Order: sequence, then C-alpha cells, then structure tokens
Amino acid sequence: MDFNLNLKALLWRMEELYKEKEIVSRTFEGRERYTYGQLTSEVRKLANMLRGEGEVVGSMAWNTRRHLEMYLAVPLLGKVLHTINVRFHPREVDYVVETAGDTVLFYDQDLEGTISSLSTKVRKVALDERWDNQVDSWDELNTLPDVEERRGAILCFTSGTTGRPKGVVYSHRSIFIHSLALLAGDVMGITSKDVVMPAVPMFHISAWDVPFASLMTGAKLVLPGPRPGPKELADLIQEEKVTMAVGAPTVWISFLDYVKRERVDLSSLKLIVTGGAEPPVSLLKGFRELGVKTYHAWGMTETEAITTINSSQEPEEFRKQGAPMPGVEFDVISPPGSSLPWDGRTSGELMVRGAWVTGGYFKDEAKSKESTIHNLEGLWFRTGDVVTIDARGNVKVVDRYKDLIKSGGEWISSVDLENAIMEYEPILEAVVVGVPDEKWGERPVALVVPKAEFRGKLKEDDVKRHLESLNRFPKWWIPDRVIFVDAIPKTSTGKMDKKEIRASINRLRE
Amino acid sequence: MDFNLNLKALLWRMEELYKEKEIVSRTFEGRERYTYGQLTSEVRKLANMLRGEGEVVGSMAWNTRRHLEMYLAVPLLGKVLHTINVRFHPREVDYVVETAGDTVLFYDQDLEGTISSLSTKVRKVALDERWDNQVDSWDELNTLPDVEERRGAILCFTSGTTGRPKGVVYSHRSIFIHSLALLAGDVMGITSKDVVMPAVPMFHISAWDVPFASLMTGAKLVLPGPRPGPKELADLIQEEKVTMAVGAPTVWISFLDYVKRERVDLSSLKLIVTGGAEPPVSLLKGFRELGVKTYHAWGMTETEAITTINSSQEPEEFRKQGAPMPGVEFDVISPPGSSLPWDGRTSGELMVRGAWVTGGYFKDEAKSKESTIHNLEGLWFRTGDVVTIDARGNVKVVDRYKDLIKSGGEWISSVDLENAIMEYEPILEAVVVGVPDEKWGERPVALVVPKAEFRGKLKEDDVKRHLESLNRFPKWWIPDRVIFVDAIPKTSTGKMDKKEIRASINRLRE
Repeated sequence: MDFNLNLKALLWRMEELYKEKEIVSRTFEGRERYTYGQLTSEVRKLANMLRGEGEVVGSMAWNTRRHLEMYLAVPLLGKVLHTINVRFHPREVDYVVETAGDTVLFYDQDLEGTISSLSTKVRKVALDERWDNQVDSWDELNTLPDVEERRGAILCFTSGTTGRPKGVVYSHRSIFIHSLALLAGDVMGITSKDVVMPAVPMFHISAWDVPFASLMTGAKLVLPGPRPGPKELADLIQEEKVTMAVGAPTVWISFLDYVKRERVDLSSLKLIVTGGAEPPVSLLKGFRELGVKTYHAWGMTETEAITTINSSQEPEEFRKQGAPMPGVEFDVISPPGSSLPWDGRTSGELMVRGAWVTGGYFKDEAKSKESTIHNLEGLWFRTGDVVTIDARGNVKVVDRYKDLIKSGGEWISSVDLENAIMEYEPILEAVVVGVPDEKWGERPVALVVPKAEFRGKLKEDDVKRHLESLNRFPKWWIPDRVIFVDAIPKTSTGKMDKKEIRASINRLRE
Repeated sequence: MDFNLNLKALLWRMEELYKEKEIVSRTFEGRERYTYGQLTSEVRKLANMLRGEGEVVGSMAWNTRRHLEMYLAVPLLGKVLHTINVRFHPREVDYVVETAGDTVLFYDQDLEGTISSLSTKVRKVALDERWDNQVDSWDELNTLPDVEERRGAILCFTSGTTGRPKGVVYSHRSIFIHSLALLAGDVMGITSKDVVMPAVPMFHISAWDVPFASLMTGAKLVLPGPRPGPKELADLIQEEKVTMAVGAPTVWISFLDYVKRERVDLSSLKLIVTGGAEPPVSLLKGFRELGVKTYHAWGMTETEAITTINSSQEPEEFRKQGAPMPGVEFDVISPPGSSLPWDGRTSGELMVRGAWVTGGYFKDEAKSKESTIHNLEGLWFRTGDVVTIDARGNVKVVDRYKDLIKSGGEWISSVDLENAIMEYEPILEAVVVGVPDEKWGERPVALVVPKAEFRGKLKEDDVKRHLESLNRFPKWWIPDRVIFVDAIPKTSTGKMDKKEIRASINRLRE
C-alpha cells in the first residue's frame, strides 16, 4: 500500500490518539499550556490562513507554541517552512530570505530590532497575531492534501563560519523516518510517558526533529521560549517534571554550573542529550553525580539532525560521537577518496548518507558538487570532519579539516587540547586555535574562561602544567600562550567562532 | 538524498556495526551459535548460489539460522522469499507453490513427509546443504544490488479458515519501517542489550519482523528451532538469558503452566509480547506474578506483522489490542462504509492502512477489490474484524464478523464468552461457536479444555454457574452446552479452527 510518510500522518496521531496530551510553552511573561487537540486546531486555522501564500514561508522565532504551529501548518499545505537563525546579521537574513524566495516572514516580537534593519521587501508578520481571525470557512479546515513524502517541508541555512549560508531542505519523509528513529530504545527512546524539552533552537536544524518525535509518540512537550538561560531551563525542568532535555554543550555547561550552585532538584530528569560540538567529559561527570545520564550525539545542518548517538557513560567512550542510527551509513576516506580502516586510529574525512542526509544544497549546484562524491556504494555527503571510526562503528571527531593546527609539519588537534583544558577544575570553557608562526608554520594558542570563583586567580602556567600533568600530549602540543577571557566568541548557533577568535588573537599580537 | 530503505541497509549495519553480536539457533540435537559477521558471510554465499534462480524462492522451515540466512539472501538479490506454512496440507503447499511460481523450495528435513507428498514439480533442496560448496567466485560476493525499496521481499499466504490461501507481499520498505517502529520505546523498545526470542514462526508473517528488528539494532537473537515446546522455550530463556520473547497466546498458556509447575527461573525475562488471538487475562496475571510484563499486540497476514501494541498491565485495559503504531492509521466503519465514533462502545469493522499494510492480494484482483475501500481519506484495508475504538485510539476486537453469533436477532460475542470462561481457574482453554438452532437461529456452544488436575472432575453446570456469577452477560448469552475435550482443533497458525469445531459439533449432534 502506498502510504506517504508525511506530516499529515503525524497530525493524524495527534488528533486521533493524543488529543489530551500537553504542550507547555514558556513566554517572556510566564507559561502557556494547551493540549495536542488545541494545538492541531490552531494548526488547521493557520493552514487555512496560509493557503494563498507562496511556496516558501519564513519564520524567525524561538521555541514557542506559535513556532510549533508553523512547523506543522506550512508543510501540511505542501509548502516549505524556512526557519531563519535569529542570530543572523540582518545582511544574512536579507540574503537567505531572498535566496529562499520567502513571500512572508513571521517573527517573534523581541526580534524587531533585526526585522526593522532588513532591506528585503518581504511582508513581515509578528507572531502574536491570532490565526483564527483569518478563518472564513471552517469546512476548508478539514481538507489537507496528502503531500508526497519526498516533498520539502523545512528549509534551513547553515551558519558556516566561512562563506555565505547554504540552504538544506528536509523532506516530509526524512522528518518522519528520523523522528521514528529518535524513538528507538538505542537512540533517545522517547515514550508517551516522557516530558521532553528541546533546548536546541527551533530556528536551526528543526531542533533535531525532537518536537516532531515527541508529538509522534504523545510525549509532553516543553518549549523553553525566548532566550532561555540556566535559571529558566532549571525552573521548567523542576516544575514541568522534564525527563529528557536536548541542547548544545555550552547550554549544559552553564546550566550545570547553575544547578550545582543553586542546588536545583533534578529528580525528574533522566537524560540529557547533547551535541553540536564535543561536550567536555566534565559534563558527563557533573550530571552523573546528579543521577542524570548524558548521551553524546552528532549531526550537522546537512544531516537534518542527529545521525549518531553514544549512550556510553564511561568518560573515555563518551568522548566519541557514537555509531550511526538505523537509516544512516558512514565511511571514512583518505583525501583521494578511498576507504580507510575502521580501527579507531586511522583518521580521514567522514562520509555520510542515509534517509535524512542531504544530497546537495538548495539552488547551489557548485557547492553541492563539491560536497558530495559518488563511489561504488553510491552517493555520499562529505562532512569536512576529520574522524576515526572504531570496529563497532563509533565515530570520534578529531577535528574540522580547517581547524587542525599544523606545527612543524605535524598535526595538532585543537579539539583534544580544548577537552583536556576543560578537564581542569577551575576552567569553564576553552578554545584552541592555530596562529601563524614563522618557525613552525602554526602554533596553538588557548583562550580560556575560568569559573567565576577563579577569575583573576589563575595563571597561564597553571593551565600549561595541568596539560603536562595529563601525560597525554607531546611537549610541542602544549599551547604557546593561554589567554584568559570573560567569554568566548560564538557563532549564531552557539559554536565557538574560531574565525573570529583567530582574528582577535591576531589583533592582540599587532 | 535518495536512500533506499531496503535489506541492504540492514546488512550494512550487521557487517559494519555488529559483527561480534551473537545468534543462537536451536536444532534437534542441540544449539548452534555464531556471530552476525559469520551470518552475513553465509548470507553472501547463499546469495551467490541463488543468483541464477527465478524471481520467487520458497522456504518451508522452522526458526533456524539457515532460514534466517534465506530471509536476507533472497531479498538482497531483488528476489522474493516465499515462506510456506509448515502446517499446510500438501494440497495447500502445491497450490501456493504453483501460485507463487517458486522455482526452488528449501525445506527442513523433518518436513520430508509433507515434501514427499507434494504433486508440484518444483525443485526441492534440504536445508542441511552447506552454501559454500556453491561459491565459485568470491569477488561476486561483494556486489549486491541496491534494491528499490518498494520491491517485494517476502511473500506469505494467509491461512484463512475459509477458502484458499491468499498471498500478501511485504516490501523492503515495509520491513524496514516496521522493524524501526518495533524499536520504539512505546512499542517493543528492543535495544542492543536485549536478547530476543521470536517464538512466532518464521514460516508465517515473517515472525512479525522481530528477527529483522533485532538485527537492525544489534540485539542477541535466539531462534527456537524446530517444534519448540514449553520445555525447549524455558531452557532457551534460562540459558541464553532471553529478555524479550514473542509468541501466540496458546504458546504462552502452556509455557506458563510448565514454568509454574517446574519452578523455572525467569529472572532474565522482562517482556512477553503476544498476539494472533486475544490472550486470556490469566496470562497477564500469571506472568505478572513471575515479574514479567505482557504486552498485547494485534496484526494479521495482511498487515505484515503487528500494527498495535498495548503495554497496559491492568487486566481490563490489557484485553484491548492497543493503539496504532507510528506508520499505521485506523478507522472503524459501519457496514455501509461511514465512520463510527471512537467511544469504546460503538462497534463496526476495523479499517487499517499504513506503511506496512497491504493494498491487495498477490495475483487476486477480485479478493483485493473485496478487501479494500477508497474513501475521502484514501485507500483502506478491511480487516473483517468487529471492533470498538476508544478516545485514545485503543482498539478492542469484539469478534470476527463471521464468528459473531446471532441469537434471536441479537449479537453474541464468542470472544467475550471465551475469555470469561478462561477466567475460571480450572480451565486451560475454551472456544465458543454458534450452532444452528430452529427457534433462535443460532445458539452458542462452548468447547472447554480443563487443566490436567481438573480432568474428569468438572461438570457442565460448573462452567455455566461461573459465567452467571460474573454478572457480565445477559442470561441468553450463556452457552446451551459445554463440551469437555482434551484439545481444541487449531489452524496451521495455531488459531482455534472454528470451521472445524462447528463441523465436529454438528457431527456430534447427528
């Protein structure tokens, strides 16, 4: 039987099986809460309102119920929701809106600053408007098309530190299969008894499809709203009895610091899933002390969401990104393109393919060609990540190709050094970059944020001695300089902005 | 990216991620055990050997490693494995082999009796032959086609109690999605740490895809081999530390009786999943006393495998078949075809559709047309089951349309009566059928198997008084006769054979 794996099948579950299930959405003022039944009624109103729109509808919004309604309503019409990173510069927003061809842009009101600076002529609608003002005919609400499963549902642009953002389209099919895979016991194992909080932004990589997966199985969904800080996340977890939360390592680093200081009760919380950058082992250990498991996941804009999960609670194993989920396949290749052994030692570029991996970029043939290769096994996407893979398929990201440091003709892994520095108790965050050096080509330099109580008390040599004491690195790996800073520059998706960091170090040296 | 959800993607996982995982296969003599890596090597040998075969390859075999190798090798070539019910009469085997167009039939040696009685000229190969005798070129082993996901993989014929068997084709895609769905926490939640034993036969409904799902996530798989009885199942569970086992209610009824009598240690076992017929509540209670959960699932040949799961451990809820899994949709209709309310009371025919529901029968347009309807929502398969659905989508099978008893113009549910009789402590099994009656049209008659220790001691009136004492049924529901028997006639798939039962009651009356 032909059965489209589309969002209408998700809507069916929400309307027929889970009407009474709950959704909580944090606002600036407090919390809104409603049922799946009320959500789907809003979705049908919005869909009705958007019938006349063009093929691509833009959103610039936080993790809120209104954004969730757009997540469903726009694709249900066979149109594409273009989620725009709220941290983009207005020039980047102009670029992606024009490239995507948005006919309307819905935005959260606190983003009016960016919105008012845009040059694009796209129509802008604040997200506080009520959909139901727009409904003329209630009959129409019941007829939604059975969208072909390979049709695009969500469009997301990368926030690469180099070059212009590149668009990636997620289809109904890829969302459905990825969401189903998230429910697997060896992945997240979300069930109808869980309370799930995606602290990864819905404006980027569809919040890893975690909202869709939660709705698919009838979990209670907690949306942390605009600009959530550690206190807001902790309050939601405590008061809504969150069992699973998903977010980038930086989110959980400051969260963990906060909950330890404030002695927050995390008894409902079973699982933190983190990814987007390598989480420090201190995160695993910190949460373990509080009785919470931490899973390490890996994905990128081009793989829609996560493609691996590592549930190991052993520090050494935890540092790996994990093995591919059902529906995804990996390989590791040498620069000319031949497969390398999966021995946990030989490193090369990670290649991915699968049911939710992109085959190329939106309207960008040149970049698409550059990022994919065909071999005997078919089409693969080139990740640009340097990895090893072990005999059980566990991937370890050694570095980004462009972030490796080449010193005296040898490679130094900035990621390894960063993690080693963060194992040092007084350190909150660290980043290591290569800076030009006359003698060695490049040399590593570390930017370090000490924990509040250690500010001003820590010396450069303390950090260097810590690294040496680990007996893990050759002497020439130890960074030449350790610079103490209050914060590390981040990209719009919360990753450490190495391009900006290198530039500021160079400014310091001048 | 186009990525086929096919069995090659499953093979990839087995070869790349789970090489060292274990498979145990019970034989008449003992147990064979090997790794996924060894299994896939055998699969590649077999695939090589079968390259020259026709499109359909037959198997008549138990749950063994050789059969598992066929499950993979045949579909990996783009051919269809036709699994034949070992309990079919030779005439039925002839019919399905000819209808399917098998060019070769592999069989387990203990089935030589049936095999030697066949009229079909199909080539027959005993399953004890080693595949590797046939391998000429090892290079060829590495090239398997990337089969289009909608292509057929397994063909299974119904074992309907009326009429000729009807063929249903399961595609690569439907097997992949269904297997993925079985991993979900709200379904079976199989993980790589589980030890899974399918006691449902691989010769029918692909053992509910449980072997595929287990291999997809790297679970240890225990195949109970030829003609397993309660002792064989208990030994395997104890010695292989099985955590999940799947089988029909009749299997678990005699198993529970055995483990209680023999005080078998079931400490590894967490979960029994049962379906194929409504399990008596005594099963839930019996396993609960031993610390084992029982889930109630529902499916049919035409839905490939299970489509619902009910994890409730409350006796009243447990009697329901559960809510549809992600990827499946239900409706309940009145005879003319209009939707009925989901109120847990209104009964009508169950309609299903979804990613692993058939759209029609193999080479049988008339039956296909009869069994499907198109409405505004699209295509649906008519199950022939009379059900109610509650507000949370939980299905309760009231009866088969053809098994309802019409007495004095009112309907009597044979299933309700059977379950009520089985609640009576001295009773092992019961079946209720309608027999012709001059005055009332039809009247219910019960066939009852007492437990060993109650044989010869129980009277007809004891059973009737038990039914009356429940205060659950109108007086005219109480069966006119209760007949004590040693065993209840079963169909080839272990269901109570109501056609045969009615015939023998009629013989008794003559």
